[in-house]
Amino acid sequence: MKVINYLLGYENLKIIQDNEMFNFSLDSVLLPNFITINENVRNILDIGTGNAPIPLILSTKTNANIIGIEIQKEVSEMAKESVKMNNLENRITIINEDAKEYSKSATSEYFDIITCNPPYFEVLETSKFNKNDYKTIARHEVNLNLEDILKIARKLLKNGGTLGLVHRPERLIDILITMRKYNIEPKKIRLVYPNKNKEANILLIEGKKNGKKGLKILPPLYSHNNDGSYTDEIKNYFK
Amino acid sequence: MKVINYLLGYENLKIIQDNEMFNFSLDSVLLPNFITINENVRNILDIGTGNAPIPLILSTKTNANIIGIEIQKEVSEMAKESVKMNNLENRITIINEDAKEYSKSATSEYFDIITCNPPYFEVLETSKFNKNDYKTIARHEVNLNLEDILKIARKLLKNGGTLGLVHRPERLIDILITMRKYNIEPKKIRLVYPNKNKEANILLIEGKKNGKKGLKILPPLYSHNNDGSYTDEIKNYFK
Repeated sequence: MKVINYLLGYENLKIIQDNEMFNFSLDSVLLPNFITINENVRNILDIGTGNAPIPLILSTKTNANIIGIEIQKEVSEMAKESVKMNNLENRITIINEDAKEYSKSATSEYFDIITCNPPYFEVLETSKFNKNDYKTIARHEVNLNLEDILKIARKLLKNGGTLGLVHRPERLIDILITMRKYNIEPKKIRLVYPNKNKEANILLIEGKKNGKKGLKILPPLYSHNNDGSYTDEIKNYFK
Repeated sequence: MKVINYLLGYENLKIIQDNEMFNFSLDSVLLPNFITINENVRNILDIGTGNAPIPLILSTKTNANIIGIEIQKEVSEMAKESVKMNNLENRITIINEDAKEYSKSATSEYFDIITCNPPYFEVLETSKFNKNDYKTIARHEVNLNLEDILKIARKLLKNGGTLGLVHRPERLIDILITMRKYNIEPKKIRLVYPNKNKEANILLIEGKKNGKKGLKILPPLYSHNNDGSYTDEIKNYFK
C-alpha cells in the first residue's frame, strides 16, 4: 500500500512509500549527512535512488541540481511524486533508467558528487531468489555491483569529485580495493554501531577521484542507546 | 640509559628499556590483548620484536613457544636480558636476524600465530633520515615493509593460522590489499580512538591464512578519557 510519510523529522519533506516494496532506511539518512558538501557543488547524481530519500535530504543542504537514477519503474514513479509533492522539480530530476546505460550516454566529468546506497549483497552461484523482485534488486547485486558503481563514478565525476557510499562493513575490503582500482581514493570512513558493545553494522565511506592517499577514520557513530532509543546524534539528523 | 621497568601493570613482568633508543608503546600492549589465542596454539612468531613486550605479554596468555625476531643487535640483547630476568628462556626465544632472512631458512607452515608491530611509515623518495638510526628502523619501512611481512606470514603460517598487526589507520587500504594479495584474509578489525571526539589513531587487524571472506569490525576502543587519564579498558590491560 502506498502511503505518504514525512521524511522522518525533516518537517517539510514528505516521501511516498509502498511498504509492499520497500521503505527507505536509516542508511539513506546517514549518507547525505556524512558526505562533504561545499558551496561550489553544482551537480549531484544519486545512483539507485529508490523513492528518493537521498536527493530529498540533500536538497536541504545544497542548492545544487540533483539527478536520481532508479531502474525500477514503479519505484521511480513514487520518487517523482515525492519530488513534485515537495515542489522540488526545479532542483531534483528523477530518471527511470539502468545507471549503467545512463552512464554511457551522459557527459563525462559532469558531477561534483555521486552518492549511492547500493545493493549490499554479492550474488553468489548459490544465491537463490526471484531476480525480478523489488527487494531483491534493491538488496542484491543482480543489476548493479560495486564494480559497476565505480566504473560509473570514474566516468561521470569531475577530477577531484566525491563519491559517497553507504554499505556494510563486511564488504569493506572489496569496497576499498575496487575504489582504488578505479582511481577513487578512499579519504574518509565512518563506522556506525548499533550500540557501544556491538560490532559495526553500517559503513559510510567517501572517496575522491584522482585523490592523494590519506585516509581518516572519523569518530564512531552509535545509532541506539542501551534502552533501544535513537542516540542524540541520530535524532539530530531527523530535525 | 638502560633502565629496568615493570611492563606496565603486569606485576610480575619486567622489561629492559633504553630511552635513547626507544621504549615500547601502547601499541605493543594492545596487540597481544586483541589477537585470538586458543588452547591449541603451539608456536608463535613476533616479527620485529624490539625489546620483546609482545612475547612477554603473550607469555601470560598462552603456554605456546614464542620466537621474537629483532634485526637490531643492541635491541635484541635487551630483549634477551628481559626474557632471562623473567625466567622465560624455556618459552621465549629471541633471535637477532633480519626477519626476511629468518623466513628463508625457517620451516614453512610452522606457526599458529604471527604478530607484528611493524614500521608504520612508507619510505618515499622524498623521505629524509639516517637509515641506521634505531628509531628510523623501528618506524620507517627501510628494512621491513608490509609486502615483506605478508610474504613471511604466507610462508610461515600454518593453513588457517592467524596474523595480527597493529598499525596506523591511514595505512588501512594498503594493509587490506596486501593481506588479500597474499591470501591472508582480513577477519577482525578494531579501531582505537584517543577519545570520543577524535579520529582513530591505532588500527588492530587480524587475518587468517586461506580464510573465507567475512570481516567483523569490533566495538571501538577509546584509549583516554576526556581528562587525559587512561580509560578503564586500557587500565584492565595493565593489571
